[in-house]
Amino acid sequence: MRRWPMPGSSDEIREGEQRFPFDPADRTEAGLCFIGRIRSPWSKGNCPKNLREARERGGDFRLELDEGYEGALRGLKVGQAIQVLYWVDRGTRVLAVQTPGHAPEPRGTFALRSPVRPNPVALGTSVITSLDTDYGIVGIDATDAFDGTPLLDIKPWIATVDAPPGWRPGA
Amino acid sequence: MRRWPMPGSSDEIREGEQRFPFDPADRTEAGLCFIGRIRSPWSKGNCPKNLREARERGGDFRLELDEGYEGALRGLKVGQAIQVLYWVDRGTRVLAVQTPGHAPEPRGTFALRSPVRPNPVALGTSVITSLDTDYGIVGIDATDAFDGTPLLDIKPWIATVDAPPGWRPGA
Repeated sequence: MRRWPMPGSSDEIREGEQRFPFDPADRTEAGLCFIGRIRSPWSKGNCPKNLREARERGGDFRLELDEGYEGALRGLKVGQAIQVLYWVDRGTRVLAVQTPGHAPEPRGTFALRSPVRPNPVALGTSVITSLDTDYGIVGIDATDAFDGTPLLDIKPWIATVDAPPGWRPGA
Repeated sequence: MRRWPMPGSSDEIREGEQRFPFDPADRTEAGLCFIGRIRSPWSKGNCPKNLREARERGGDFRLELDEGYEGALRGLKVGQAIQVLYWVDRGTRVLAVQTPGHAPEPRGTFALRSPVRPNPVALGTSVITSLDTDYGIVGIDATDAFDGTPLLDIKPWIATVDAPPGWRPGA
């Protein structure tokens, strides 16, 4: 697995990579709480490249809410698509340009889904497969998040908000 | 415009609404930086209900990055769809169940796109209409965010991550 450079060191930057002229982690202007954890079969070493590969490989995937958040699930339904937001802090947030393994050339952080970004909030669209509103457990069809990843939010997926206008599969 | 109850007060809760047994704002475990601002024609009083209405009404919409973030745009293209993440803190984060005007009955926060939520991070899918990588300005086709809203992230929209599996428009 790739080791990311730690903030403050410059010796682990790959060729073609660039840093921001500051560390975004030093500029906190708003605070997030963790509302629960993501459960998945994934850990360092066996993690899929992305959500599509996670879906293909399959497994037991669920969102476990912390006590007190259960009531906020009211109205969600099995079969519904949701946006899952989670926290993927990998130790640095300073890279402006990155050279991930799959990219042919260095690319800007905002043109990548890399977890290394000024605000390491990741998101993916999943489908609810089971719902336990007493214990705050939401089964989902797939996620590419590591087991134990902090959960930030669940939102209903809405085509007019979450798909580009006029988008067609295969386009 | 709806006035949301302030944390700690209970007198502005509507019938059917419920609070979390704690204030998520008191549980900060991670920090966000603002990477820029959203520019739009919208302010209190003239704001569209959602991204679809914003798109229909039209206007001048853009993302203005703070100095230093420009380089992270490399690789984005005009015409490309992006996920725009922004901060929509409206003064409270305590509601578990809400009764928004458009909903027939009270609904859980995780079943709504309301800005009132434990982590008030909003997101919508926009299309890049212009790109100035020298000054860090990204024109987009639409957003429903107020003018001046703090920007958190830009990500490329990817069908296999951001659309439900098998989803078809009109389904």
